[in-house]
Amino acid sequence: MRLLMVGDIVGSPGRKALKENLPKIKRSHHPDAIVVNGENAAEGRGITRSISREFFGMGVDCITLGNHAWDKQEIFDFIDSEHRLVRPANYPKGTPGRGYSLCRVGKKNLVVVNLMGRSFLSNLDCPFRTADAILDQLEGTPFILVDIHAETTSEKQALAWYLDGRVSAVIGTHTHVQTADERILPKGTAYLTDVGMVGPYDAILGMNKDLVLKKFLTQLPVRFEVGMGRTQFNAVLLECDSQTGKAVQINRVRIDDDHPWFE
Amino acid sequence: MRLLMVGDIVGSPGRKALKENLPKIKRSHHPDAIVVNGENAAEGRGITRSISREFFGMGVDCITLGNHAWDKQEIFDFIDSEHRLVRPANYPKGTPGRGYSLCRVGKKNLVVVNLMGRSFLSNLDCPFRTADAILDQLEGTPFILVDIHAETTSEKQALAWYLDGRVSAVIGTHTHVQTADERILPKGTAYLTDVGMVGPYDAILGMNKDLVLKKFLTQLPVRFEVGMGRTQFNAVLLECDSQTGKAVQINRVRIDDDHPWFE
Amino acid sequence: MRLLMVGDIVGSPGRKALKENLPKIKRSHHPDAIVVNGENAAEGRGITRSISREFFGMGVDCITLGNHAWDKQEIFDFIDSEHRLVRPANYPKGTPGRGYSLCRVGKKNLVVVNLMGRSFLSNLDCPFRTADAILDQLEGTPFILVDIHAETTSEKQALAWYLDGRVSAVIGTHTHVQTADERILPKGTAYLTDVGMVGPYDAILGMNKDLVLKKFLTQLPVRFEVGMGRTQFNAVLLECDSQTGKAVQINRVRIDDDHPWFE
Amino acid sequence: MRLLMVGDIVGSPGRKALKENLPKIKRSHHPDAIVVNGENAAEGRGITRSISREFFGMGVDCITLGNHAWDKQEIFDFIDSEHRLVRPANYPKGTPGRGYSLCRVGKKNLVVVNLMGRSFLSNLDCPFRTADAILDQLEGTPFILVDIHAETTSEKQALAWYLDGRVSAVIGTHTHVQTADERILPKGTAYLTDVGMVGPYDAILGMNKDLVLKKFLTQLPVRFEVGMGRTQFNAVLLECDSQTGKAVQINRVRIDDDHPWFE
Ligand SMILES: [Fe+2]
Ligand SMILES: [Fe+2]
Ligand SMILES: [Fe+2]
Ligand SMILES: [Fe+2]
Ligand SMILES: [Fe+2]
Ligand SMILES: [Fe+2]
Ligand SMILES: [Fe+2]
Ligand SMILES: [Fe+2]
Repeated sequence: MRLLMVGDIVGSPGRKALKENLPKIKRSHHPDAIVVNGENAAEGRGITRSISREFFGMGVDCITLGNHAWDKQEIFDFIDSEHRLVRPANYPKGTPGRGYSLCRVGKKNLVVVNLMGRSFLSNLDCPFRTADAILDQLEGTPFILVDIHAETTSEKQALAWYLDGRVSAVIGTHTHVQTADERILPKGTAYLTDVGMVGPYDAILGMNKDLVLKKFLTQLPVRFEVGMGRTQFNAVLLECDSQTGKAVQINRVRIDDDHPWFE
Repeated sequence: MRLLMVGDIVGSPGRKALKENLPKIKRSHHPDAIVVNGENAAEGRGITRSISREFFGMGVDCITLGNHAWDKQEIFDFIDSEHRLVRPANYPKGTPGRGYSLCRVGKKNLVVVNLMGRSFLSNLDCPFRTADAILDQLEGTPFILVDIHAETTSEKQALAWYLDGRVSAVIGTHTHVQTADERILPKGTAYLTDVGMVGPYDAILGMNKDLVLKKFLTQLPVRFEVGMGRTQFNAVLLECDSQTGKAVQINRVRIDDDHPWFE
Repeated sequence: MRLLMVGDIVGSPGRKALKENLPKIKRSHHPDAIVVNGENAAEGRGITRSISREFFGMGVDCITLGNHAWDKQEIFDFIDSEHRLVRPANYPKGTPGRGYSLCRVGKKNLVVVNLMGRSFLSNLDCPFRTADAILDQLEGTPFILVDIHAETTSEKQALAWYLDGRVSAVIGTHTHVQTADERILPKGTAYLTDVGMVGPYDAILGMNKDLVLKKFLTQLPVRFEVGMGRTQFNAVLLECDSQTGKAVQINRVRIDDDHPWFE
Repeated sequence: MRLLMVGDIVGSPGRKALKENLPKIKRSHHPDAIVVNGENAAEGRGITRSISREFFGMGVDCITLGNHAWDKQEIFDFIDSEHRLVRPANYPKGTPGRGYSLCRVGKKNLVVVNLMGRSFLSNLDCPFRTADAILDQLEGTPFILVDIHAETTSEKQALAWYLDGRVSAVIGTHTHVQTADERILPKGTAYLTDVGMVGPYDAILGMNKDLVLKKFLTQLPVRFEVGMGRTQFNAVLLECDSQTGKAVQINRVRIDDDHPWFE
């Protein structure tokens, strides 16, 4: 099974870049399933029903989220009914939506799990124990992709080692910068600390750089806006053994003006 | 001018990996100057006089530091007299040591600046204004390498955009994971969010993974120890225009069992 | 010189409680000057020009602020021209407004300084060194009141000991809960870790308690609103020697249904 | 039932002050049970078996803890067998020790619960839900004292409102500064944001003030030591209805050179 995981899509430039780049990757790599992180899809904060439909219309199978999941109030209207939308599973019991979802991929099932780190983020339930509880329920499912949405490299690496051999891949999101440490851990779990973002290239995490700089320099409240201009596209391709679900290959995808795509 | 910047060297495995890999890179790439981040060189926390001499003996021209600079009490005995040792410049006035240093590279001068981010780290002076103050003093020096030691991707990117065109390169350290976003910004400053670490490969940021996992799972005090076994080496090669100091090329270096080095 | 320092005034219930209680205290204690913290005066976040005028109209001599100073955009229109409005002095150079102000009290001058702590708050300049710089400029002024707006008890106590004998009083704000540790430090500086707030009594820091509880329980975004119902009034009375400015007395004022005021 | 809750006892000066002041309070107020927070009892960090025995020998019925519970390694040797020692209940399942304990008070039972806040502290389980789970198990027990060990005033107030009418009292610890907001909430739960500490009076949270100041001023690692000299004693007296367990009175106790004790 070949999976494409795409990082945090930021605002309309991110959505446009997704639309442009997804077909190219489909043509050359034929992923069996596509997962994108959509927490920043609507003006950099949150996601709407129409944007999620836009993504599904492009062939996306599942959308994961993160700390910005709830920034558009509208999410509460459709998250319960849209089973292809997954929010961090370690929000407390009773939180709207679901923490993992099952996608049909040909004759197989892919489970997509979303977890959130706690270091420098929210006070959620333990992501390690939440992962255990989910895996207990999935007994026997070999294809499991975990999006670990977290700030620190240590919490992400810790989760990957904790889940090594129990899931197909642990892929990080949230920092909006792709890391170069893709690898397959000893027991067969593919790992990448962060897949990076999709959206403005000449910006700071996708947001207008002058505004972010103003914030750092003045420490005053600044209303961030999505950046403009040319874009970047960051993703990762995963190949899993069709029987065991173990990862056999992991390749980063980076497309921007400095790294053009050759088909 | 060709520069090699090597990321946080963690403990004795890191020092050993530096010793093994530096000669290979020298042979094939002939860097004019070598800078390493040494904040974790002594058992994962701090640096000693003998370790710094060990590094200089290997051909290192300058050692940068970070939040762990002070973990070995011994540093206070030699940081003032060792001009090739640079600690974050935005520690308050009166802090032992220096925040930037001038290295002789052939007939030219290279200035190495160390700055530390504040987000989720220490309460230091503003790194942006500190950079301004240093650059004011350096008027006319074209070759300037900035090691920005910080937790968040946003603070690092912000500093890079802030200094674009004013320094040769802004290279991040501290997260111990190499990022894949190397680029040359529009006005000629090379940038990489994090260069990554040198040390244990099957570990969490270089520390024994069972201990770090224990910390995350129990939230109890755990004494971390440097990991063991095979190692990784992460660095970046920078090529600067010999007249203007502007970056003309930036290439990441990653050496581990999954990415062997071919000479 | 007798000073009344009133804690963070929260929303319209806070303004109403100020209006009701100030006359009583004036009648019985005749303060020479009145200082209030106004960072939460407008709907719990920020302050407006009309609210600041309302306060001055009640006999307030000076308004201090804090991290919420900037929450009403309007502040930027009048902070530069209103010399009785003081924002934390350790915001970076170039920040609108002023960090200390001189009030005329009879034939004497009272200097009101506002400083902000950094622990778990913003990345500002060092409050200790900023205090030093201000005191250098005030050489010879004996009546100095410092509002230290900070989260942790340690940072507030540290500043008080640091300034002991150099200012008349160091009074904390920001936590919205009055502390019971009023004292005069050995060299003559009056100290109270936090003066407490003015506003809703059956609320959480003055905000609607159901909303704050919802935030803690769900970890989802919640829009806080100022609480309703009966109110509390917290302040502190300071008596300073009319020659030296040293504190000779410090008394807490707490008025609520459980602590009615007897004139 | 009359309860005495004593705040964080800091080091040997704190233990000495406890020994001196406890008999006075016993003589004049005859508490039925005495609870102390012991997280800082051993050199300011943690507690030992011999110190806990010392406390029990003075008539202490139960010792609560906090984030510093684990600082003396020795705790792991006796916390499981000492049922009068209570650590925060919301540490993850499997943590040594217990989160609440039952003390025999005459012919009645007092349950002492310890909970820890998460804001700016550790990544523990939800203290609100943990409280619910404990109260479910205690169905029918009227005398329940909750020590909420937390940094922020908001999290402490939130817990108090959440538990109002379900426990006899919610008393805060951790900030080491007594607050002046004691009250009985509408449904009968006594509340105090922080009871304060026992130990050095001319210090910062009980630690040597020069060392803490050095830390704030230099941002370098500083090894804190317990302060010396005269001491303070902070506690709270609670009176609960002997049938319903509801609080009927709450009085703060503060003893130091500025507030001498009159029998
Ligand atoms: Fe994101
Ligand atoms: Fe995020
Ligand atoms: Fe490091
Ligand atoms: Fe570091
Ligand atoms: Fe406030
Ligand atoms: Fe505040
Ligand atoms: Fe404590
Ligand atoms: Fe504590």
